[in-house]
Amino acid sequence: MRAAVLGTGLIGGSVALAARTWLPDWHVSGYDPDPAARAGALERGAVHDAFDDPATAVAGADVVFIAIPVDRIPRACDVLSGMVSESAVVTDVGSAKGEVVARGEAALGTRFVGGHPMAGSERHGIEAADARLFEDAWWVLTPTANTTADAYSTVADFVTRVRAKPVAMAPDAHDTLVASLSHVPQLAASALVGVAVAAEDKDTLLGLAGRGFRDVTRIAASPPDMWISILKTNRDAVLKALEGFEHRLSDIEAMVYEQRWDELRGLLDEARSARLELFAKPDYGGDPVALSLLIPDRPGVLAEVTTAAGRLGANIEDLRIIHSTEGGRGRLELVVTGSTAADGLSAALDALDYRVDRGVPEQ
Amino acid sequence: MRAAVLGTGLIGGSVALAARTWLPDWHVSGYDPDPAARAGALERGAVHDAFDDPATAVAGADVVFIAIPVDRIPRACDVLSGMVSESAVVTDVGSAKGEVVARGEAALGTRFVGGHPMAGSERHGIEAADARLFEDAWWVLTPTANTTADAYSTVADFVTRVRAKPVAMAPDAHDTLVASLSHVPQLAASALVGVAVAAEDKDTLLGLAGRGFRDVTRIAASPPDMWISILKTNRDAVLKALEGFEHRLSDIEAMVYEQRWDELRGLLDEARSARLELFAKPDYGGDPVALSLLIPDRPGVLAEVTTAAGRLGANIEDLRIIHSTEGGRGRLELVVTGSTAADGLSAALDALDYRVDRGVPEQ
Repeated sequence: MRAAVLGTGLIGGSVALAARTWLPDWHVSGYDPDPAARAGALERGAVHDAFDDPATAVAGADVVFIAIPVDRIPRACDVLSGMVSESAVVTDVGSAKGEVVARGEAALGTRFVGGHPMAGSERHGIEAADARLFEDAWWVLTPTANTTADAYSTVADFVTRVRAKPVAMAPDAHDTLVASLSHVPQLAASALVGVAVAAEDKDTLLGLAGRGFRDVTRIAASPPDMWISILKTNRDAVLKALEGFEHRLSDIEAMVYEQRWDELRGLLDEARSARLELFAKPDYGGDPVALSLLIPDRPGVLAEVTTAAGRLGANIEDLRIIHSTEGGRGRLELVVTGSTAADGLSAALDALDYRVDRGVPEQ
Repeated sequence: MRAAVLGTGLIGGSVALAARTWLPDWHVSGYDPDPAARAGALERGAVHDAFDDPATAVAGADVVFIAIPVDRIPRACDVLSGMVSESAVVTDVGSAKGEVVARGEAALGTRFVGGHPMAGSERHGIEAADARLFEDAWWVLTPTANTTADAYSTVADFVTRVRAKPVAMAPDAHDTLVASLSHVPQLAASALVGVAVAAEDKDTLLGLAGRGFRDVTRIAASPPDMWISILKTNRDAVLKALEGFEHRLSDIEAMVYEQRWDELRGLLDEARSARLELFAKPDYGGDPVALSLLIPDRPGVLAEVTTAAGRLGANIEDLRIIHSTEGGRGRLELVVTGSTAADGLSAALDALDYRVDRGVPEQ
């Protein structure tokens, strides 16, 4: 197999290093416009070869990873459409998916699968790249009604092999989710620091900052350029989540102003329980379980199934569609990790009128 | 010396344990209405004796530490006024100071010194108490125009001996500061979790939470009762800081909505620089330096000097007023840590028209 990684920064470099580590028989080519990033990728052994033009890097590639700033991914999909081979699967690692997936599918068709590894670092660049960056991290994939099972499986298989946990969801659901989980918290952290900086006795104030303030505002140190790129691409979902957050804050302000302490205690208590649950959550670990179901041969089925899994936080490790010869129907086989996930997914698919058989994965 | 600690929970228990560790010749008595807290304090060796009534605990005490929920401290000061000896110094460890100091001074006079160790833990109760909780932590003291130098020195000396760093500021300045640094971040963290919990796919959402979300929302797991107590006592400053935070967020929302990306990048960049500075700040460590200045014998001088030090983040280790016999004037001697702090404080006092002499501390 041949992989091409476009953009050998923190994430692209880590994808390349992970491929070299866990898929030693793969050939990995890199592209980066920055000579230092190319030299760094070669020096760190992340890529076998590094090119300053994308066409050469993707020539003959089976899988292409687009790992450039997210606001430039849609345009990159257009450019790639004339470069990659017909059989290549193309994925990306951008932090917002709606616009990216729409343009990716428009330009590259059904072999484009949107992706977003939920891993990162305050550091950036190839120097900070790490083969283990994705270990145990969620890696969201966003198949749609158009995605082929082959394309999905190719990417999900890669994700599993580099020790990450693939989870599927619809592009819009992903964008709403990261707006609440990541983009608005980022803006809130920057705003909290901003308010502190604006204070009269700024130096005293920052000097006295305790552990709580340090925790809350740690992500405010992230690179602004990366964030502008993300906010541009996820603007609608961010605005909606920001509005929800502001409403919640003004509710809190009213409770403090009107001294409705019991109500505020209830709100803090609910947040506390949810926060404690974060650590108590089952991670759906365990042995792989195979689920098999008859499906109508129509577009959208794959997205329906993977989205059901995504909603449960279930990790689809493998997925295959076997087309039947009896016209109009086929069989979908998928492998999830752990019986908790398998139980949940079976029930969810049952509710969608799929009949699910259960077994042990082949290999 | 005899110390009495009223309330042997996390902070009171840690004050007692620190006293036992660093001031082994002191006698430490405890008061707590909860038998388990008393038993725990005795068992952990935090106190020599533990009582279920405060009058017995404070009888003969030279220093009294009030370590109960902050909204109950003002009332406790009233109760204590008939119990503590005339020569006793009384301090507290509450997270808000304006109301506490006003009531403390009204009830106990010039020997009341407000305090707030900037240290804590997600855990609570005597089991979580730790003799080293205050090590290297700031411990804010809030002297006013009424505070005697003796009372201030007694508390500052204790703080230094338990390895914390005393820093003085006016009660209101403290309250504004903790509203921005601690109380509003706490509410923001709870609101962020609250918005996430309210989402449709709540389980997926929380399951996918990455490190950023975990950091930002860690403090949302703090005990709601403690927070309600703090918010009640610091209501005005919290409302003001909350308003500032909401304004900042709506500015950000407008920038995203109107796609004013350069402006938003500037705002993120400013927050990033300030956040990085948090770790780069000089800690004013170094050898102690003695500063000595002639002062008019009028109330308010002590607060003026300590507040100037507080504004610089300078750590006043020791402080003494020598009254002159020539009527109307005296000499104030104070010891700060490190020449950076000494330079800054000399300049600040110079600007206030004090003439400062510099030397090496006596012992």
